[in-house]
Amino acid sequence: MSEMAERTGMSVTQAMAERRAVKAFDPEFRIPEPDMRDLLETALLSPTAFNIQNWRIVRVTDAALRREIRAVAWDQPQVTDAAELLVLCADVDAWDKSPERYWTEAPQAVQDLIVPNIRKYYDGRPQVARDEAMRSCGMLAQSIMLLAAERGWDTCPMDGFDFDAVAELINLPADHAISLMVAVGKRAEAPFAKPGQLPFEEVVVSDRF
Amino acid sequence: MSEMAERTGMSVTQAMAERRAVKAFDPEFRIPEPDMRDLLETALLSPTAFNIQNWRIVRVTDAALRREIRAVAWDQPQVTDAAELLVLCADVDAWDKSPERYWTEAPQAVQDLIVPNIRKYYDGRPQVARDEAMRSCGMLAQSIMLLAAERGWDTCPMDGFDFDAVAELINLPADHAISLMVAVGKRAEAPFAKPGQLPFEEVVVSDRF
Repeated sequence: MSEMAERTGMSVTQAMAERRAVKAFDPEFRIPEPDMRDLLETALLSPTAFNIQNWRIVRVTDAALRREIRAVAWDQPQVTDAAELLVLCADVDAWDKSPERYWTEAPQAVQDLIVPNIRKYYDGRPQVARDEAMRSCGMLAQSIMLLAAERGWDTCPMDGFDFDAVAELINLPADHAISLMVAVGKRAEAPFAKPGQLPFEEVVVSDRF
Repeated sequence: MSEMAERTGMSVTQAMAERRAVKAFDPEFRIPEPDMRDLLETALLSPTAFNIQNWRIVRVTDAALRREIRAVAWDQPQVTDAAELLVLCADVDAWDKSPERYWTEAPQAVQDLIVPNIRKYYDGRPQVARDEAMRSCGMLAQSIMLLAAERGWDTCPMDGFDFDAVAELINLPADHAISLMVAVGKRAEAPFAKPGQLPFEEVVVSDRF
């Protein structure tokens, strides 16, 4: 972990409370390369089903590409102004691509038990594989946002953009899907307050609907 | 926040490193009600697109129902033995159910701008609404798991179960979807080490595939 990350430790609870979707970023702010790598490596400790690590992160550093993405993302300024723009994608067929490589460090008996079940679980069930793509990227996105908050940075999760147009701009392979984008940087303006929370009892159900 | 939660603060980075999928839980361990409520309330500060808060958490406390779910979940012991079993679901049509209620605290001008866009975004795009369900629950799940780690508890994310059978057991409404289950409690055995990480360069792509 870099010195910067060590200095800015924040509890999970605090990070949850501090995190807000920021729309106006300081365009001058840059994240040092080792700190960004540290954040991403740590975020990649998030779980995936069967450890398939189906996520793929496209880190957009090219300014021209940022402008092209902004043009198909409702002209939202965070796309070009945030220090980092991450397009969280997934390889929807990751389960079918030598899945034994996700379990190389496990004892042989565990490998023999789990690896054959990976194909059995997803084979012929494209919606299940698609759901897995979105779930994995959701968990990864939240890790990135909380780790950023811990480091004193701001984030904005986004799915307000033309997915097909962004797919074309980043040469997304046909068997991959985009889940969402996350901008990371430093706020230029205070974000809005939370716009309205549903009552706890409406969201948390006991035993059955 | 309860006293217990205050005592066990842990940084986001530490929680990321400590969290492992635990399979063997101490069946005697219980989480005090205020602490569980605090964890869930804090986790519900996670973001959702357009603040639609489409997630619904079914907290399964009935021991008989836990046994029924275990029977359709590959007999995994964490289903009955963990202190808490949460079925993370989503109302796939949340965007269509009085979406103005998600923005009541925002300034009127913001409400007027955003609320009409919610229907425009999802209407006639069932896969987009389904993706949103999985993304929201993924973010919520990761928040729950990191908040639990901060409190010294263990978790296990699960999608190894018969989704249709669990849907029937919890009376899932037809316009809802199950995303995953999360068990929360105290480990009885040390979990496996990470079974194998893909190389960073395979997962993080610069600008384009």
